[in-house]
Amino acid sequence: MNIKRLLFIYLALVLTLGSSAVASAQDVDPLPSWNEGKAKQAIIAFVIKTTTQNSPDFVPPGQRIVTFDNDGTLWAEQPMYFQLLFALDLVKDLAPQHPEWKDKEPFASLLKGDVKGALAGGDKAILQIVAATHAGMSTDDFAAIVKEWIGKARHPVSKRLYTEMVYQPMLELLSFLRTNDFKTFIVSGGGIEFMRPWTEEVYGIPPEWVVGSSIKTKYVMQGDTPALMRLPEIDFIDDKEGKPIGINSHIGRRPIAAFGNSDGDLQMLEWTTAGTGARFGLLVHHTDAEREWAYDRKSHIGKLDKALDEAQAKGWTVVDMKQDWKVIYPPTK
Amino acid sequence: MNIKRLLFIYLALVLTLGSSAVASAQDVDPLPSWNEGKAKQAIIAFVIKTTTQNSPDFVPPGQRIVTFDNDGTLWAEQPMYFQLLFALDLVKDLAPQHPEWKDKEPFASLLKGDVKGALAGGDKAILQIVAATHAGMSTDDFAAIVKEWIGKARHPVSKRLYTEMVYQPMLELLSFLRTNDFKTFIVSGGGIEFMRPWTEEVYGIPPEWVVGSSIKTKYVMQGDTPALMRLPEIDFIDDKEGKPIGINSHIGRRPIAAFGNSDGDLQMLEWTTAGTGARFGLLVHHTDAEREWAYDRKSHIGKLDKALDEAQAKGWTVVDMKQDWKVIYPPTK
Repeated sequence: MNIKRLLFIYLALVLTLGSSAVASAQDVDPLPSWNEGKAKQAIIAFVIKTTTQNSPDFVPPGQRIVTFDNDGTLWAEQPMYFQLLFALDLVKDLAPQHPEWKDKEPFASLLKGDVKGALAGGDKAILQIVAATHAGMSTDDFAAIVKEWIGKARHPVSKRLYTEMVYQPMLELLSFLRTNDFKTFIVSGGGIEFMRPWTEEVYGIPPEWVVGSSIKTKYVMQGDTPALMRLPEIDFIDDKEGKPIGINSHIGRRPIAAFGNSDGDLQMLEWTTAGTGARFGLLVHHTDAEREWAYDRKSHIGKLDKALDEAQAKGWTVVDMKQDWKVIYPPTK
Repeated sequence: MNIKRLLFIYLALVLTLGSSAVASAQDVDPLPSWNEGKAKQAIIAFVIKTTTQNSPDFVPPGQRIVTFDNDGTLWAEQPMYFQLLFALDLVKDLAPQHPEWKDKEPFASLLKGDVKGALAGGDKAILQIVAATHAGMSTDDFAAIVKEWIGKARHPVSKRLYTEMVYQPMLELLSFLRTNDFKTFIVSGGGIEFMRPWTEEVYGIPPEWVVGSSIKTKYVMQGDTPALMRLPEIDFIDDKEGKPIGINSHIGRRPIAAFGNSDGDLQMLEWTTAGTGARFGLLVHHTDAEREWAYDRKSHIGKLDKALDEAQAKGWTVVDMKQDWKVIYPPTK
């Protein structure tokens, strides 16, 4: 091979690699499960304008903070929050060790499958369920309990694993954002330690990017070994006004985009989009009774009422699940 | 220029870049301000064994969590914590608007320069100082106050900017770790919102990697604009037993290495080094009365007593500032 030929191959290689890089940016659809439409267009336009160097809306990579609600935004939340179904399963598992629960609320109702009756006791009932199922063990032991449950428990309606009830279009969106150097945080009303054991594997979101509600912990020595024990005492509720507070505490910076689905996310979207520069707010509207569930203004779970009005007023993007999503869930394994 | 010549330049370039990459890994000292000795050897050995693919102690990049105390570990803390000097400066600035402070403790003593007298009032006095200087404004306004102060205030003894009293050897250590895909968190007893406005510029540590003590905030609407108002109420003290709790809350994973300098860091090092796999604990021992300060078991600030004994018992690395560090501070600008 002569030198001319060698140089030709090298130049051909540079040109090929160069053009394929351009192709991957322009021709490959980063959101294949999203139908063409306003929502998809708005997302892609926001990513392009905030990541293009000479754009007036350019945001440096480190500052591309975005926050996602979890229940109803990244995975389903019907017929009730999955963490409540987790607590229910634990109560059933623990019942043989607690014969007194047969006659004691909220456990008596729970064991009969009457969740509504159990929750009629309000905050006190919820705290009793939390204390029985989420406290009294070390943080390591609780993580192991969650991992075991999430690996085998199945949804009462779909019979899928709960991790198979995440939304495929949102998985693509998380990936698309991270490929473009966005930091994708979860900011959920759900328990921070209920989510962290599985969010990295399922969403690609590491524990330090998960913000949620919490109970207090106490540092104790068990012999020579330190442990963090979970106490039956609420520490922080990461919902509604709590979301901007949780964001400030854990992230310390205002997000440039926020994604939610209910009135519990209203303040997070308000806080996010009130910042200067390019901002983006998005609500997932559950409109698909056939493939998922259809609910909004009158729902007990994931009520979407005030936030839907605000979306109109403030120009937030509203995803119509039925229209905008080609599929809901990823394929089962 | 003929083709032969062009190809020669290209090949020369490849060879040069290739060999310089190798050189940077093997020959360039990543810790030039550290004298050769046990501490430097121990740090480098830990980084090599946790980042070498086939090492039994290999830790995947995402899990390379390390935590640093701030006061006395990354920057100086004498003659008193710099955040207290910040509060003092603010009290002086605010005094004209508060004529009543002349006769009211702890402010009367503070304004006479008698810090010890002011702090004689204990927790109540501290809370009053916090309330007067750290609360009552929005989080954005407080960040602006901190930024203004840190940009111009000077240390009473060295006359340096406070950001010029960070430790050059620790800056190199932070860089060395991040170059090797470690996530370098601050876990400090100092105020989380006092540190975040400047840690990225000074240490390369973004806001979401800063854990510290906090006061409560409240989400409010000021007209159409949302704000987080800082309340005169302690939320969390990130010191001693609080450090593992803060780590669990903010990071959600046990660090594999922890760096501190006082008994306030004892539980963080204990918690970190009690994990399985390769672990590393390090204490900075202030032994240099000439270039910095010398203090340990009997100091009011940064007392290092129990943790020094534990370091012996548990094999933690102890840095002797006088012996181990070639320089203390970076050059002034």
